[in-house]
Amino acid sequence: MDITLTQTTNAQWTRLVEEYMQKSEPIINVHRDDKRKYNAIFVGGGAGGRFGSGYLRALGGRQLIADRWPFLGGSCPHLACVPHHLFSEAARELDLMRWFSGKLWFPDATNLRASILEVVELFKAGRGTAHAFMNWQSKEQLDLEYILNAPATVIDNHTVEVAGERFQADNLVLGTGAATAFPNIPGTELHGVYDFATLIEDLDFEPSRCVIIGGSKTAIEYGSFFQAAGCPTTIVARKPLMRTASMHHVDEDLRQYVVDGMRKRGMQILEGVEPVAIQGDGKVQQVTIRDMRDGSEQTLPCDFVFIGTGERPKSEHYREVLGVAVGEKGEILVDKHMRTSVPNVYAIGDLIGPPMEMFKARKGGVTAARNIMGESCEFDWTDYPDFLHSTYEISWVGLSEEEARQRYKNVVIIQMPPKGVPYADIPLPCAEGTMLYAFMFPELSGFQKAVVDGDTRRMLGFHHVGYGAKDAFQYLDHLMRRPGGITIDEMGSMNELFLNPEHFIQLSRLRAGSPDLRDL
Amino acid sequence: MDITLTQTTNAQWTRLVEEYMQKSEPIINVHRDDKRKYNAIFVGGGAGGRFGSGYLRALGGRQLIADRWPFLGGSCPHLACVPHHLFSEAARELDLMRWFSGKLWFPDATNLRASILEVVELFKAGRGTAHAFMNWQSKEQLDLEYILNAPATVIDNHTVEVAGERFQADNLVLGTGAATAFPNIPGTELHGVYDFATLIEDLDFEPSRCVIIGGSKTAIEYGSFFQAAGCPTTIVARKPLMRTASMHHVDEDLRQYVVDGMRKRGMQILEGVEPVAIQGDGKVQQVTIRDMRDGSEQTLPCDFVFIGTGERPKSEHYREVLGVAVGEKGEILVDKHMRTSVPNVYAIGDLIGPPMEMFKARKGGVTAARNIMGESCEFDWTDYPDFLHSTYEISWVGLSEEEARQRYKNVVIIQMPPKGVPYADIPLPCAEGTMLYAFMFPELSGFQKAVVDGDTRRMLGFHHVGYGAKDAFQYLDHLMRRPGGITIDEMGSMNELFLNPEHFIQLSRLRAGSPDLRDL
Repeated sequence: MDITLTQTTNAQWTRLVEEYMQKSEPIINVHRDDKRKYNAIFVGGGAGGRFGSGYLRALGGRQLIADRWPFLGGSCPHLACVPHHLFSEAARELDLMRWFSGKLWFPDATNLRASILEVVELFKAGRGTAHAFMNWQSKEQLDLEYILNAPATVIDNHTVEVAGERFQADNLVLGTGAATAFPNIPGTELHGVYDFATLIEDLDFEPSRCVIIGGSKTAIEYGSFFQAAGCPTTIVARKPLMRTASMHHVDEDLRQYVVDGMRKRGMQILEGVEPVAIQGDGKVQQVTIRDMRDGSEQTLPCDFVFIGTGERPKSEHYREVLGVAVGEKGEILVDKHMRTSVPNVYAIGDLIGPPMEMFKARKGGVTAARNIMGESCEFDWTDYPDFLHSTYEISWVGLSEEEARQRYKNVVIIQMPPKGVPYADIPLPCAEGTMLYAFMFPELSGFQKAVVDGDTRRMLGFHHVGYGAKDAFQYLDHLMRRPGGITIDEMGSMNELFLNPEHFIQLSRLRAGSPDLRDL
Repeated sequence: MDITLTQTTNAQWTRLVEEYMQKSEPIINVHRDDKRKYNAIFVGGGAGGRFGSGYLRALGGRQLIADRWPFLGGSCPHLACVPHHLFSEAARELDLMRWFSGKLWFPDATNLRASILEVVELFKAGRGTAHAFMNWQSKEQLDLEYILNAPATVIDNHTVEVAGERFQADNLVLGTGAATAFPNIPGTELHGVYDFATLIEDLDFEPSRCVIIGGSKTAIEYGSFFQAAGCPTTIVARKPLMRTASMHHVDEDLRQYVVDGMRKRGMQILEGVEPVAIQGDGKVQQVTIRDMRDGSEQTLPCDFVFIGTGERPKSEHYREVLGVAVGEKGEILVDKHMRTSVPNVYAIGDLIGPPMEMFKARKGGVTAARNIMGESCEFDWTDYPDFLHSTYEISWVGLSEEEARQRYKNVVIIQMPPKGVPYADIPLPCAEGTMLYAFMFPELSGFQKAVVDGDTRRMLGFHHVGYGAKDAFQYLDHLMRRPGGITIDEMGSMNELFLNPEHFIQLSRLRAGSPDLRDL
């Protein structure tokens, strides 16, 4: 279907996307009357391809997106970040109902069981509206060209074949993402084994006992949802949770608060173990694991296995056709301009490896677009604000206390609860989302810490467990990385919105007056 | 009791505060061996007095706080902001349960009724731990001197009498707050009439039908809680809600989203009416109101009246004793140094009039402290980030679209949902707190808007209805007011934490590439 000249509303797009999910006909939105050559073809219309395209178009260039799905936005609104957020919100609400079982207006939660299958179905029934919006916005507001519902084949570094037609461009931008790295053990083909993608597409029964293999963010996030839903969940991980390379900047006290919190909620967390096999007769019945210290094995009965071992870039096609250089996990190697080893070929997003985060995909796309359009533009994603969900939102940016103490000799810590005060003795931190906890279970109302260099008075890091602080961390990241950074004195001079979920401004103010900073 | 030389834990303080709430004996923490004169006595140990004291002490000065209550922190953790936040969280959770009645894991909410009395009791049972923390932190971490549980009498501009003793200081800092301005109508003395303070202290029955007199923030916030709890609530206001002077910077579309949202949830909102009388036989039975256009009267049956007409500074004592100049609503007049008309007397917090917000109280205290200690320091609180709760969190900072269009000729709007797209057609904005709504009731998932000057590319204002964005507004305020402000290009270059409750960073990025900014 060619929709180039049609004005399609969001409501119409919702129906169209649903219809095209069931068939293989392409959706074509190409400005045939524009005789200019494409500055770039974006292979993959996920976050990076869409934002890169938008920026390139805004700079006056011409672009084309090709995507195998009938919608733009990629895996995020279809399989990944958006369902994860829905599940994490469900986890938070279910968790609240369990703690408050029979108290105040909350019903008895002894037998509370949320249907994981039903929440998955809720997501699938609604995801089309987000897809529709991406298509609508990209066409009507951003003036982008795209061909959807048609897999693209790269022919060479200027040519892409899509929907039976060859398109030429000065440059290619590859952004087709990553997929779960399934562990190399027997049984991953059994019914009942899922990753985040197949969970959405294929779940067809109500899980009653879950084993999660791996300790990634996804493992923690999905596991916390399964447990909160009432499906007892065991995480099986080689390393301690939150001690993986991608989660540097996390102090042990914050890690403890989070992981102890998961255990308090009934999760079984087995660290220092590796999976040996998933076993069952057609369907999953158990997982055998091995203790990495003494080699002893044990079996964990379950009917549901979730693979949370992280993702690997899907770079095979590009290695074969273009010969792009890749790293040891298949990630396409790029420089800070997002250029691959092949001239005129850029790569972005999860395809270039971790961190597989939204800001990196989008800004990578923008960086590629700017370079393609003649600006010399670098993007450094080595440091960034980060977060994950348990039943809490956990956000952090900058240095951990431990990292700071290795680099600075006068590190000052501002935290809540203060060091030495039992969590149960004070209902702080508290704000939106932790008020009920603060007044009934103060030890559940969160944890937060700011790390300061006492000599320069610069803020070095911020860390938070609770709710409602995540957005602030975007701006704290910006403030820390601007020239001169941000000092405790500037923090203390800001206008807080009380009760603010992170109490950093007012806590900074309480110390800012002193020439000799001390812990708080 | 003199606790100066005692190290009291948070747990011990909790018991002490509870004990002293029942008696009039003072709690004394005064450094008798320090022979220096006090730089300042803070009359009132609320937010302003405590933060001012902390800063003055950190600067090396000597201070004394006198407070009538056996704890520091003032009305906020005792009667005002903290219970408001607890009530607003209850409202949010109850509201969610009502929309999702019988869906997913949510129980049927047809007969859902939360006990307002029980939530008030929950607050009262727990507030002592926050009080304890204020006392503990002020003594053990901030090294402050204070006399609690003893009303202070100002003798002259250097002398305060408290607990039967006279204390001398170079300066006084007055910060004893405000109280509800009860309307001058018959019946306010009836049983069943409360304001935010007496609601906490005196509520002794379960309200079943509420009329709120006044349209202040408190009216909206408490009213949304009463309604969500299952107590049908009518707001009676002279002006349209959110159209009061203190809520400038609010556009009509945002106002509509909020007020329509309250109506959708069953609240009755009567604007352009004024109260005539509260009537009943000892107990409230009805409120008579008058239409301000045609003078017609009607009666609203109820057993519960909540006064939400705003607060007036409690300045009488200071006018009588010191002769400080006050404004027409009794607010003590101060300059930007927080100096009153009387030499060496400063005033801070709600006592100097609106905005009666936490940042102003605390920073006012700090400003007074710095001036007292010899720094010349000004504080301008004319503009600030602001928020209120309905069942949502509503945050705003900077100019509204309407205000911007009066001052700039090329105003660009970035909003979600975009103008012209029906709210029900797209599930955006969404993030933590609105995910369930986005997938079941997309029109409930919030509203947001950024206002940009298309010529200078500077961000002029941000506006948000939803959850989890409030903290960000503190930093957006800072970024907008720093020299040069913040441009859409800088916004677009930041690292978002996706899904971010406010989508300002990525939406800015989608337009940042273009030399000619357009709406999004």
